[in-house]
Amino acid sequence: MSATFTIGLDYGTNSVRALVVNTANGREVGTAVWNYEHGTAGVILSRDPNLARQHPADYVKGAEVTIRRALADAKRNVRGFKPGQVIGIGVDTTGSTPLPVDANGQPLAFQKKFAKNPAAMAWLWKDHTGVAEAAEITDLAKGIRPQYLAKCGGTYSSEWFFSKILHCRRTAPEVFDAAHSWVELADYVPAALTGTEAPDKLTVGICAAGHKAMFNAEWGGYPDAEFLSQLDPKLGALRARLRPTAKSIDESVGGLTADWAKRTGLPAGIPVAVGAFDAHLGGVGCGIKPGALVKIIGTSTCDMMVVPVVSGTGVSPVQGAGADRQDACPTTGKLADIPGLCGIVNGSILPGFYGLEAGQSAVGDIFNWFVNYIQPGGKTGTHETLTKAASKLQPGESGLLALDWNNGNRTILVDQRLTGLLLGQTLYTTPAEIYRALIEATAFGALTIINRFEEYGVKVEQIINCGGIAEKNPVVMQIYADVTGRPMKVSRSAQTCALGAAIAGAVVGGAHQDYASAQKAMTGLKPRDFKPNPKAHDIYRRLYPLYRKLHDAFGTKEWNGNLFDVMKELIQIRNTVRKT
Amino acid sequence: MSATFTIGLDYGTNSVRALVVNTANGREVGTAVWNYEHGTAGVILSRDPNLARQHPADYVKGAEVTIRRALADAKRNVRGFKPGQVIGIGVDTTGSTPLPVDANGQPLAFQKKFAKNPAAMAWLWKDHTGVAEAAEITDLAKGIRPQYLAKCGGTYSSEWFFSKILHCRRTAPEVFDAAHSWVELADYVPAALTGTEAPDKLTVGICAAGHKAMFNAEWGGYPDAEFLSQLDPKLGALRARLRPTAKSIDESVGGLTADWAKRTGLPAGIPVAVGAFDAHLGGVGCGIKPGALVKIIGTSTCDMMVVPVVSGTGVSPVQGAGADRQDACPTTGKLADIPGLCGIVNGSILPGFYGLEAGQSAVGDIFNWFVNYIQPGGKTGTHETLTKAASKLQPGESGLLALDWNNGNRTILVDQRLTGLLLGQTLYTTPAEIYRALIEATAFGALTIINRFEEYGVKVEQIINCGGIAEKNPVVMQIYADVTGRPMKVSRSAQTCALGAAIAGAVVGGAHQDYASAQKAMTGLKPRDFKPNPKAHDIYRRLYPLYRKLHDAFGTKEWNGNLFDVMKELIQIRNTVRKT
Repeated sequence: MSATFTIGLDYGTNSVRALVVNTANGREVGTAVWNYEHGTAGVILSRDPNLARQHPADYVKGAEVTIRRALADAKRNVRGFKPGQVIGIGVDTTGSTPLPVDANGQPLAFQKKFAKNPAAMAWLWKDHTGVAEAAEITDLAKGIRPQYLAKCGGTYSSEWFFSKILHCRRTAPEVFDAAHSWVELADYVPAALTGTEAPDKLTVGICAAGHKAMFNAEWGGYPDAEFLSQLDPKLGALRARLRPTAKSIDESVGGLTADWAKRTGLPAGIPVAVGAFDAHLGGVGCGIKPGALVKIIGTSTCDMMVVPVVSGTGVSPVQGAGADRQDACPTTGKLADIPGLCGIVNGSILPGFYGLEAGQSAVGDIFNWFVNYIQPGGKTGTHETLTKAASKLQPGESGLLALDWNNGNRTILVDQRLTGLLLGQTLYTTPAEIYRALIEATAFGALTIINRFEEYGVKVEQIINCGGIAEKNPVVMQIYADVTGRPMKVSRSAQTCALGAAIAGAVVGGAHQDYASAQKAMTGLKPRDFKPNPKAHDIYRRLYPLYRKLHDAFGTKEWNGNLFDVMKELIQIRNTVRKT
Repeated sequence: MSATFTIGLDYGTNSVRALVVNTANGREVGTAVWNYEHGTAGVILSRDPNLARQHPADYVKGAEVTIRRALADAKRNVRGFKPGQVIGIGVDTTGSTPLPVDANGQPLAFQKKFAKNPAAMAWLWKDHTGVAEAAEITDLAKGIRPQYLAKCGGTYSSEWFFSKILHCRRTAPEVFDAAHSWVELADYVPAALTGTEAPDKLTVGICAAGHKAMFNAEWGGYPDAEFLSQLDPKLGALRARLRPTAKSIDESVGGLTADWAKRTGLPAGIPVAVGAFDAHLGGVGCGIKPGALVKIIGTSTCDMMVVPVVSGTGVSPVQGAGADRQDACPTTGKLADIPGLCGIVNGSILPGFYGLEAGQSAVGDIFNWFVNYIQPGGKTGTHETLTKAASKLQPGESGLLALDWNNGNRTILVDQRLTGLLLGQTLYTTPAEIYRALIEATAFGALTIINRFEEYGVKVEQIINCGGIAEKNPVVMQIYADVTGRPMKVSRSAQTCALGAAIAGAVVGGAHQDYASAQKAMTGLKPRDFKPNPKAHDIYRRLYPLYRKLHDAFGTKEWNGNLFDVMKELIQIRNTVRKT
């Protein structure tokens, strides 16, 4: 039997990547990246720093160019490789990145009169123009539909679907009125490849709809028309033009069209899986399963877990403290709402499992800020030299403690109006000490997320890391191991999002019966993991309560107390460490 | 009548300065500086970073060299100037800088066998070897003599007289046993110039004794023998060999000896005033008087005020809230103990007035840390470029808030175990924004001291600044004016300490009847003062309560509360400022 392959299409912020993967062993045999042509590094900007859009033409051209080139690359790498061996396609994208479409499901931006209108383009995930609308949606939901917020951490974000659409309605009514409906990028690409863009044929993925558009089968899909109408009558009317169901990535949206087969060289008719967000398919590419926390660590982090959905009575998937909480349901196995998580969505990562999403608003971005903005020590202030110098310091030696909030806090506080903090400076504090304190702060933030999962009964049995920092910075990984007291594993693939999309292609293409077997065959870990150093962990066990004290004092309304001991305890720890 | 002149001798940490001043108008007509010869920049160091000593030979040679050179300089500058026109000498020094002396009052370090023994030298103000002994003294006083601590802020410092002597007793008993007694540098120099070093002739100044050695006429001078004996019996025995009285700077310790006249070219017999600390005579040189706060701003600050001593019944010098406090005495005019002040000593600055001393442990040192250790932006990270960039920012614009505790807090918390804090960082925070936040932090610290004076009824009617930063950095002065809402005046002289010493020489030399007339004639202000900008002050009135909240939360045991509003309020202020 000849080998079979699938393609993962990975739409990032600045470029799109195609990855050709062997379905038997996950070997990545061909790849190609294409940078979007429009805007600045693919992003259309304006005078408003909150605005970030993309031109949908880039999505279409990007698929064609990267698939062709990736196939050519596979031909060079694998003797006898033929595009006919490709049996399926998966797609992951950024999100929430909705775009307005016409009655045929075609992007409005493809019409001449809207071609240069930013409101008619794709509203990129990091577009924050809908801040006011997000607050409005949150307030209304708090008042009349609290259940909508319970699954997304208590606050509806300006980055999300309805904030953007409502902002378009308010600020670009001509675009809103011209739009028949709105489609997430993660749904648009599979639809385009399979010719199912038409509103009655469109398949909506549960990942985007559930995490960003308050879609939940419990209340019949999207938020009800009454709720949306209170925000704006026309938004209420839009609901009838949104799909009533949403599917997970084990389903196919259709077969590759003859036209796309011609454009790419792939066989016509091969199935294209339901699309999902990059992070979620990255989790799949890391081998996510119950008990495994997958951390994608880059400029920010995405932290994901899955919990089996148990229908009817049976053994609860929720164990530990959370099982006893009022909001959990141990007899039905219904998962408790976990305060502060970005989202809990049935089927959003793996079919048959709740997908749980948490994250840190900035990790690598904080280190980048320190190097690029503060520019410590001129030439010696690079990531490399600072990392090296920081690695030589003992935990606690600097007397410093930081909060990782330079870009707000996503989990567990869900509060953008928080900022960074550094404490413990003397007249001799060095840049390397600050750099290490910033790394430690992100590690403390990571530990806070782990603890939150476990507080609600979702046991973290292993941690699998991927993303740029996990790939490139062993010092950061070691500090994470020392702070959390848990081994840090690293995913074998450097392209876990595209790999996860390829795995989706392998499941819908029939190479594997289900995700469990596909992941077992196609994912893996690097041989080296990072084991906690017990001595370092002991120090961090003294430091973390101080971090948590600052976290709660500045981050919660409920905290009440005194911080008189914080600086003194840090000095005490410093003195202990320096003596030994 | 021909003009008369006096000499101010100013002993600093690294060098000594002589200044020749016209007694009629304060004109500074000749000056000379001589760097100490021993040690590193005049300071003898060891492997122990707490150790800092000076060789007393430098003090003697320094007086001779600088007086000769300053007189020569005056001859060049003033036509017909003759050393015979010099009618008196004043001396200011660092402190507490005690040195062990023999039965003749001569420094032990002058003996061959002790010439290289650091314990036999002068224990420089910044020697911190007596940390343990300081804690011991504080603890004992808290238990049995709380009144001793009430006048020095509640904590006896390792920098002070008895901490150093007790540490010598414990660690260098051969030196302690060889010493007949111990003399402050501020007392030693006037004694040497007038041949009054012998224990029965020695004059002790109230400035050093009162601020650093718990000397107070109320309890009969130095701490009683019982108290000292509990620390060490030999320390108790030493008390009988310390002087029973202490004098203020309106008194002369004697006339210049024939030998010194010959060595310097000055007339023999001219009076030498009682010595005092540099900061206190700096206050005199700034024109300190009731209602005037003098701030000497350099690497750290010294903040001084004077309050009239009213004997018997009469009008209270203490007005306002403090007058009603239990510890004030409005009928007798006795000054309240002011918690957190470094010292309150009758006559320590001006005769007939309580001298009140406060201070900040680091001001310029914090800016130096940021530039020298963090080295922001390479070549653009100098004090000059950062100051310029910081001056272009609006108050509140950065969203940052800092605490000025990189070297602990002297006033009002009297706590060295406090450290720096910076809060409000985003991913775009710049070095100039941090630099400005650090300046503002020191201004908030200054305001806290002003408020503390006024809370206890000592009204601050004007503020006179001197020292390196006041001289050179108008941006810092403007921020101080804007933060405090008060005009910042700057002393006319750049050598206020030496000028203050010269004023003491003018009073004992008879050129002026008292300090009021001498200061009126010999001191002045620069024409430009810094007036608060009402708009900026309005912003700082919103920021200061946030500073004070952090100050109390991290700095006091009593505070109890929540800091949830701090980051949010800073963002709110930032948004307001950026819009306008």
